[in-house]
Amino acid sequence: MAQVNPILEAFNQTPYPVTGNSKYSVQLLLDAFERMDGDTDSDIYGNGKLIEDFQSKMAAFLGKESAVFFPSGTMAQQIALRIWSDVLGKKKVAYHPLCHLEIHEKDGLKELHHLEPVLLADKDRLIALSDVAEMTEDISCLLLELPQREIGGQLPAFEELEAIAELCRSRGIKLHLDGARLFEVLPYYGKTAEEVCALFDSVYVSFYKGIGGIAGAILAGGQAFTETSKVWKRRHGGDLISLYPYIVSSDYYFERRIGKMPHYYAAAVELASLYNGCAALKTVPEVPVSNMFHVHADAAKETLVDVMLELYKETGIGLTRNINAVNDSSCYYEVSLGDRYEAIPKALLQDAFRRLNEKLMSAK
Amino acid sequence: MAQVNPILEAFNQTPYPVTGNSKYSVQLLLDAFERMDGDTDSDIYGNGKLIEDFQSKMAAFLGKESAVFFPSGTMAQQIALRIWSDVLGKKKVAYHPLCHLEIHEKDGLKELHHLEPVLLADKDRLIALSDVAEMTEDISCLLLELPQREIGGQLPAFEELEAIAELCRSRGIKLHLDGARLFEVLPYYGKTAEEVCALFDSVYVSFYKGIGGIAGAILAGGQAFTETSKVWKRRHGGDLISLYPYIVSSDYYFERRIGKMPHYYAAAVELASLYNGCAALKTVPEVPVSNMFHVHADAAKETLVDVMLELYKETGIGLTRNINAVNDSSCYYEVSLGDRYEAIPKALLQDAFRRLNEKLMSAK
Repeated sequence: MAQVNPILEAFNQTPYPVTGNSKYSVQLLLDAFERMDGDTDSDIYGNGKLIEDFQSKMAAFLGKESAVFFPSGTMAQQIALRIWSDVLGKKKVAYHPLCHLEIHEKDGLKELHHLEPVLLADKDRLIALSDVAEMTEDISCLLLELPQREIGGQLPAFEELEAIAELCRSRGIKLHLDGARLFEVLPYYGKTAEEVCALFDSVYVSFYKGIGGIAGAILAGGQAFTETSKVWKRRHGGDLISLYPYIVSSDYYFERRIGKMPHYYAAAVELASLYNGCAALKTVPEVPVSNMFHVHADAAKETLVDVMLELYKETGIGLTRNINAVNDSSCYYEVSLGDRYEAIPKALLQDAFRRLNEKLMSAK
Repeated sequence: MAQVNPILEAFNQTPYPVTGNSKYSVQLLLDAFERMDGDTDSDIYGNGKLIEDFQSKMAAFLGKESAVFFPSGTMAQQIALRIWSDVLGKKKVAYHPLCHLEIHEKDGLKELHHLEPVLLADKDRLIALSDVAEMTEDISCLLLELPQREIGGQLPAFEELEAIAELCRSRGIKLHLDGARLFEVLPYYGKTAEEVCALFDSVYVSFYKGIGGIAGAILAGGQAFTETSKVWKRRHGGDLISLYPYIVSSDYYFERRIGKMPHYYAAAVELASLYNGCAALKTVPEVPVSNMFHVHADAAKETLVDVMLELYKETGIGLTRNINAVNDSSCYYEVSLGDRYEAIPKALLQDAFRRLNEKLMSAK
């Protein structure tokens, strides 16, 4: 059974939750299907107009020849790395030490695909051009995550990205994009998805981060790559008879939110500045480059939880749904902005941060 | 792009399609969610009341300690065989030559789990007690599929099943049930799901065969087994942030159809008898033991397709959505019965079979 998390419970009770798009509830599905014609044919094992149309649409949006809908990014990305490793006849791939595949997938890449990851860069910084240049291992594929989520959503300069792509091309290394939050960084880069994806041989994007769908992912690349990915999708057990519950909702929320990414980004910049005005708190990055950032606190997790519970009660503002301990005297949490932010009255929000600052000062 | 299949197109146009429950359309989802409260919390990565309640319900129905919801049976069954192989430290498993894992999963079991299947029995008959008794290979697990779909949905006598289970137990071999169509055979056995599952160490059941849901599967067994299966579900990329579109619809159609299995079985017996009265046709099994059977024709596929297209046009009765060639002079198709059968006027159906017989006689 799930354990009770007091800060999550309290967050869900606040009239003004600040982060995310909406509560994770069945309403997400009901909204997405409200105007759907029940007579629409299901997709059947990867075939049919419903899935093929969405795949074509996303291939075009990402500027790739072809795209395949997957139930999850975990499945799509392991498969991408496996395909490139098989193509090049190599067993090694490279990624960041805090890559999703390294810390959130129970070692699926190693246990199922027997691939050996080379961890580039330190945990607390981005992979730099020099890391790639100095790498001595013979790898098939480099995975870059834009933005690097586990360090608050940081991004390399676009020029550095171009230089890394150029270096990989010259060395025969395939470049894969973990674009779980790709849509969210386009406003900062001032680029289209197609312009960013042009640097990569294969691309994964997600539909339940900034887009706020139920679940689902797209893997895009050349035709031969995506055809092979369908074989692996079947092997993984991801070629369901019908994936339309995720496809319809992905498309619905994509249409509803893809144009709002600049607002979410601006909201993150504004909110981070409020956080950075508070005693004992700082954001990483200091100035966000997407809709997300991390908040680091020089305070024990228990202290900050108590402060937040008081604050939510007094102000009705919910700042975060969970807090992670780093050690006995520091903690952090992730902030990710969506539709909810613009509904928060600015005066209330500013008052909440005044109180937060006072509480943290007196808690010291 | 999907190829046009004339018989499928014609079948979908008939006012009286005989097989299945309904068209594969989005209406399946709309019906299942019609009375759903939008405020219901989503399941989140395998946790939450929605998924836990359904898992508990199915564990109780199957008489197992614990159950886990999976997006697909392909994923659930590979994982079951992997767990038993790891537990016993063996690389070999045994199943029928026409097992789903052998012919429909692009060798996922071999490519992802590096397990070696031992194929028991001939393609055209069931695994018998003697096959297990004479097996010399040292296997971790025997998979039995009830009914054996690819040979028309055949079943061993329950006493033989008990004897196989006893033999496996005495030899330390785990017994896994591919129960994709388990619910459909309970009326013939005259047993509860719990009574059948008691013979097996682990059990998979599906919610889109006779139950007619959108997709989804349950894997059930002891607590240690199902806990380990959750780790592998994450590795496979099946631990989606939310699986509720499949869980809610599985539960909805389970409630709607679990009590109708005796009707579907009786319908299959009745329809098979009509088929067996036709020239050049015979069913396997001759007398069905579930809601399904195969129809074998001493006729070229092209001949039978032409006959069916005429028949559908003349009578409005749709008998099958596809026909598979065996060789130049024979073909077969699968029949699986559900809600639609009882809506067919009996006189129309009998007239259709009279005409079918005449057409086949004159096509000879």
